[in-house]
Amino acid sequence: MVLKNMPVGEIIIIGDEILGGEVLDTNSFDVAKELAEAGFSIARMTAIGDEPAAIKRALREAIVQADFVVITGGLGPTWDDKTVKAVSEELSRPLERNQEAYNHLQAVLAKAGRPFLPGHEKMVILPKGSKPLGIAYRACGFKLEYQGKPLYFLPGVPHQMRQILKEKVLADLKVHFPDVTPVYKKVLRIFGLSETEMQEKIAPILAKFKEIKVSSLPRFPEVHLVLRGKNKETVEKMAREVKATLGISVFGEDEETLPAVVGKLLLKQGFKLATAESLTGGLIGHLLTQVPGSSAYFDRGAITYSNQSKIEILAVPKEVIDQHGPVSEPTARYMAEGVRKLAQTQIGLAVTGYAGPTGGPEAPVGTVFVGLCVEDKTEVKRFQFQGTREEIKLLTAFHALDTLRRHLLS
Amino acid sequence: MVLKNMPVGEIIIIGDEILGGEVLDTNSFDVAKELAEAGFSIARMTAIGDEPAAIKRALREAIVQADFVVITGGLGPTWDDKTVKAVSEELSRPLERNQEAYNHLQAVLAKAGRPFLPGHEKMVILPKGSKPLGIAYRACGFKLEYQGKPLYFLPGVPHQMRQILKEKVLADLKVHFPDVTPVYKKVLRIFGLSETEMQEKIAPILAKFKEIKVSSLPRFPEVHLVLRGKNKETVEKMAREVKATLGISVFGEDEETLPAVVGKLLLKQGFKLATAESLTGGLIGHLLTQVPGSSAYFDRGAITYSNQSKIEILAVPKEVIDQHGPVSEPTARYMAEGVRKLAQTQIGLAVTGYAGPTGGPEAPVGTVFVGLCVEDKTEVKRFQFQGTREEIKLLTAFHALDTLRRHLLS
Repeated sequence: MVLKNMPVGEIIIIGDEILGGEVLDTNSFDVAKELAEAGFSIARMTAIGDEPAAIKRALREAIVQADFVVITGGLGPTWDDKTVKAVSEELSRPLERNQEAYNHLQAVLAKAGRPFLPGHEKMVILPKGSKPLGIAYRACGFKLEYQGKPLYFLPGVPHQMRQILKEKVLADLKVHFPDVTPVYKKVLRIFGLSETEMQEKIAPILAKFKEIKVSSLPRFPEVHLVLRGKNKETVEKMAREVKATLGISVFGEDEETLPAVVGKLLLKQGFKLATAESLTGGLIGHLLTQVPGSSAYFDRGAITYSNQSKIEILAVPKEVIDQHGPVSEPTARYMAEGVRKLAQTQIGLAVTGYAGPTGGPEAPVGTVFVGLCVEDKTEVKRFQFQGTREEIKLLTAFHALDTLRRHLLS
Repeated sequence: MVLKNMPVGEIIIIGDEILGGEVLDTNSFDVAKELAEAGFSIARMTAIGDEPAAIKRALREAIVQADFVVITGGLGPTWDDKTVKAVSEELSRPLERNQEAYNHLQAVLAKAGRPFLPGHEKMVILPKGSKPLGIAYRACGFKLEYQGKPLYFLPGVPHQMRQILKEKVLADLKVHFPDVTPVYKKVLRIFGLSETEMQEKIAPILAKFKEIKVSSLPRFPEVHLVLRGKNKETVEKMAREVKATLGISVFGEDEETLPAVVGKLLLKQGFKLATAESLTGGLIGHLLTQVPGSSAYFDRGAITYSNQSKIEILAVPKEVIDQHGPVSEPTARYMAEGVRKLAQTQIGLAVTGYAGPTGGPEAPVGTVFVGLCVEDKTEVKRFQFQGTREEIKLLTAFHALDTLRRHLLS
């Protein structure tokens, strides 16, 4: 996201292990996240191997395009760390022993009771004009200015990188770019509406708020609509209009999860909940209990995987299962009513279905029934899902929780 | 690992959410990993925003440098998906309705009982000469050849991307580059041993097999040891030595999950299992039922979150809870025995504990008891975990399953 007059940065990640698919790079994400929150914008992230030619080329291209560059990796003491030499050659800054870096490493080693070994020497040889970014770690990273642009070289070890970024880089960037102010962001979390349907509904609002940057992110099985702008009031105004248009399909904002929203409604209305799960095998209970304090409204759950357990625990009549099958409207109804009675709660929520890979004689794979019993009334919804076993389980759990949410809001 | 004459690819990730630090990009890792296993090499990964100029430039640069390019993201139905138009312009391939893509989307929508909406039209407009890569999802991705080089455009949603990559792209790359031979890979999955402990134990084996590339990947709460080499027999020989050294801590290989391993042992020994979960809220049942066919050995589970439910469903004596507390050795014992009796299975597995953020009067946060009742014998283990609520729940579920696994193997 590039807003007007925002300084734009690039991120370069160096490491053979990244390109070889051995290690998931999280550094570019961490850098981008910290910078975005501080109001900076990233135009490109590049990952390359520990190859001098690739390092030089990436650096050259980034300096042309960007106002600042953050580079991670390849600063270690071993011979496969090639960043420093490549930088020195590309920017014509001869290598020399950096006194400040030397003092830093000496101090860190002394604190750990370790001697300065010949192998450490490489770590204090830096391009001329480097400003070390040392904190508590041996690897300290350094800053160089080139054509007036700050370049930050950080170690690749994630927790060290993050620490130096927060303690040194952000503050230094604010000195270089004092006019940068944080961006205001609002996330609307949507369930039960496809991206296509959502887009059609809110198109007129998008056209109206041209200064707000809007992204639509599929976060299976949710969709997140992210609104961003420099002006908090405008973002909030747009968010209100989107919510008015999409209505109940917007279940939460920012960090609010669906189980947390359901939990809040249950608390507010003084209801306790019990669940009966067949195909989800406990996933609904697991999601509910991810929320701290869920014991205030979640009493118990029955994972009734076998038919016998449905009969014994939930008192589903054997004839109902024999006649309609375990995946059927009447079975879901008896399960919801049965678990409510068992737990003596106001609400019973039940699911039964076929997650796959195969279905049953009474229904194909992906068939799911959600039963919701609130006090003396029971409703049952039928769904037909597609996807893997894991996806069908997750869709089932979300639709069950959402069915309850919509009921509590009605 | 770049071997001679290996075709070299580039990866381009498109999405404002990546550059904005909202989403951790895992696609570049997944693509690099799959390609490395198939014997291909990646020279660069670039992430850019949904900006036509940036997309064009990245594509142009990649085509010059690489033998093939994999591009993900920006193919969706919404206004912020700009990849297709940018590609069409950069490669001078006019946009047109692709009949194969249209037929694909029609079929997928029909199967879900959804109509083809005007908003879907954008998804079937592709650059001239595109070959759709449709599987079960609405977004299908496409392939273009340009200057004899294959370019693969995939949706950004990770599970869809992975599926199309595996089912379509890898096979097509093998047609383009028939001489590439896969690297043989073996993953040993370890639980209950830290990376440091593992490293110390296997150091002599590492020194012996110098031609095998070994990486240790923390995959919370597991550790994966990945062995890679061109020669299958050598890799297998090393794997056997590592397994002999690490013993029972290696629970599985390659894609085998802990619940699947436990399931296989239960099946083989003809045992049925019932679970009683307190702090995990159903997570153990959820993990067990992620495995297809788990109904053959998983009978039922009780999510006994409230004390009352432990008393009512599992027949834990009220005095035991009053005297020792719900998070205690005796409670875990009664829970395991109670659920076994209830379900009439050979095995009852129970957990009780404090996931946080707070503990209780009888035990601090992170205290967990795992009870395992097999026929007439019960054992209870106490754990003290650290971490977030989510981490403590996951550690509990894994240690419960692993306790059962070790028992079945003893």
